Amino acid sequence: MSVANAKHRKTAPQKPFDLTAFLAASTDAVNQALDRFLPPETTAPATIHKAMRYSLFAGGKRMRPALCLAAAAACGGKQADALPLACAVECIHTYSLIHDDLPAMDDDDYRRGKLTNHKVFGEGIAVLAGDALLTQAFEIAAQCRSWPRYSHQDVILEIARASGSLQLIAGQVADLEGEGKKISADQLKYIHERKTSALLCCSVRLGGMSANCTAAQLKALTEFGYNVGLAFQIIDDILDVTQTSEQLGKTAGKDTAAQKATYPSIVGLEKSRKIAGQLTNRAFAALKIFGNRAAALHGLATFLLQRDR
Amino acid sequence: MSVANAKHRKTAPQKPFDLTAFLAASTDAVNQALDRFLPPETTAPATIHKAMRYSLFAGGKRMRPALCLAAAAACGGKQADALPLACAVECIHTYSLIHDDLPAMDDDDYRRGKLTNHKVFGEGIAVLAGDALLTQAFEIAAQCRSWPRYSHQDVILEIARASGSLQLIAGQVADLEGEGKKISADQLKYIHERKTSALLCCSVRLGGMSANCTAAQLKALTEFGYNVGLAFQIIDDILDVTQTSEQLGKTAGKDTAAQKATYPSIVGLEKSRKIAGQLTNRAFAALKIFGNRAAALHGLATFLLQRDR
Repeated sequence: MSVANAKHRKTAPQKPFDLTAFLAASTDAVNQALDRFLPPETTAPATIHKAMRYSLFAGGKRMRPALCLAAAAACGGKQADALPLACAVECIHTYSLIHDDLPAMDDDDYRRGKLTNHKVFGEGIAVLAGDALLTQAFEIAAQCRSWPRYSHQDVILEIARASGSLQLIAGQVADLEGEGKKISADQLKYIHERKTSALLCCSVRLGGMSANCTAAQLKALTEFGYNVGLAFQIIDDILDVTQTSEQLGKTAGKDTAAQKATYPSIVGLEKSRKIAGQLTNRAFAALKIFGNRAAALHGLATFLLQRDR
Repeated sequence: MSVANAKHRKTAPQKPFDLTAFLAASTDAVNQALDRFLPPETTAPATIHKAMRYSLFAGGKRMRPALCLAAAAACGGKQADALPLACAVECIHTYSLIHDDLPAMDDDDYRRGKLTNHKVFGEGIAVLAGDALLTQAFEIAAQCRSWPRYSHQDVILEIARASGSLQLIAGQVADLEGEGKKISADQLKYIHERKTSALLCCSVRLGGMSANCTAAQLKALTEFGYNVGLAFQIIDDILDVTQTSEQLGKTAGKDTAAQKATYPSIVGLEKSRKIAGQLTNRAFAALKIFGNRAAALHGLATFLLQRDR
């Protein structure tokens, strides 16, 4: 190869990243893996496996698994090594939605344009389907590959802590207790950090861990995940105000109806958009150390900021 | 030491095993460890940690942790190595009780002589407290020691499978679906094996694993745990018929009222007692390979068969 050729290749414009293709491929891989990991619908007791699969395959956007796979790619890892962790995170996310939708919690009839789990299977089975998906998440995660830097112990602790009473569940509790009360912007940030940011951050960290990433890479992924997670929830708040139920596939205006504090209700729509943008910029900045390999993470963060549902 | 002395010692009668002392010591160790593993009640959000601790420290008999510690002792292990797993199993057991007691499930107002979790904290928090204890179980279990024969992966898979949709949760689903229906003795056995035996068996297996037990020892513990677990649930069925609510600390006669099939209702009280005895004998037989070190397991199996609450 001539020096001129090498030089030419070096300065050739980077092919723009095809996010649509990446999302389609990652969703496909995740769906296939989830299907392999979960007992078939016909396995006894059929009801529970039907209920688990009903919500797991209800058309979720698979954003957390996509972030996990994208983080693995950013660290030079293989998709196959990240897949069990991507699936585990999606099981945790789905369980939390099933339980959040229960009458004793947010009391939602629709999710992703379909009836919620308890509306189809009854409350008892919905509680158990959530329990089963949470348990399944750990069974799937434990089947990941271990690395010199990250053991099964590290991976399980990562998931348990992000989903536990100090993070994901803490957010749900604070959310439940804050309904109808006047809460501050700081308190709302506390809820969003735990209810959304923790598991999103966990998803990208797990992706990195599946690729045996360095400590510096893990730190960058944490910074990225935290900021994208918070931006994600602020956008969710904004969409709840600005979009119709049809556009969202779930009941719009629920937050206002439930007298739930949101970013728009506390700081206004304009400032909410500005904060989401600032957070996304911070997330972009964290990606520098990955160079071109962060294209998927960069694309996902942009997509999450600009989405309309 | 003279040969005569050695001979004398060999044939001296074994000091009878003091089960009461063993149970008191194991309960004490487990309670202290659980207190260390769980966030304090004052940690935000305080509600969830209060709710988790309310049910976890509601005076449970700590039978599963005791079986775990006794199994570790049978294999020559240290209590300290078994404690995280004993605590994890108790968290799983407590979560399953909180969710089983919910109005959408068994709808129970009392448990261990105290109001059930949802009666004190409301349904939403009770669902979340169960979720948090299930998640906490994996966080605690992941902090166990790993061994050449048993890695963290093995331990997590063991717990996830015993608690998942094919075992513990399968039992609860079948139980829920069987209410008011005429079911066979075989179907009832299916429920009991999953709802009770699976986690009891898991408890003793984890105890063995914490002691780096041999494959033969693990097989013996599995046989022991399965039979003791099934006997345990049959005794539970019998006590529900023969004891008062005051004696049980929970609502007696619930099974009959809910038209739930039980061993006494299907095969009669006399035959139920006989089956429980046979299962316990099978459990005893499995203990032979452990010699005198199985004293605690032997004592616990006897106690579980003879208990009156």
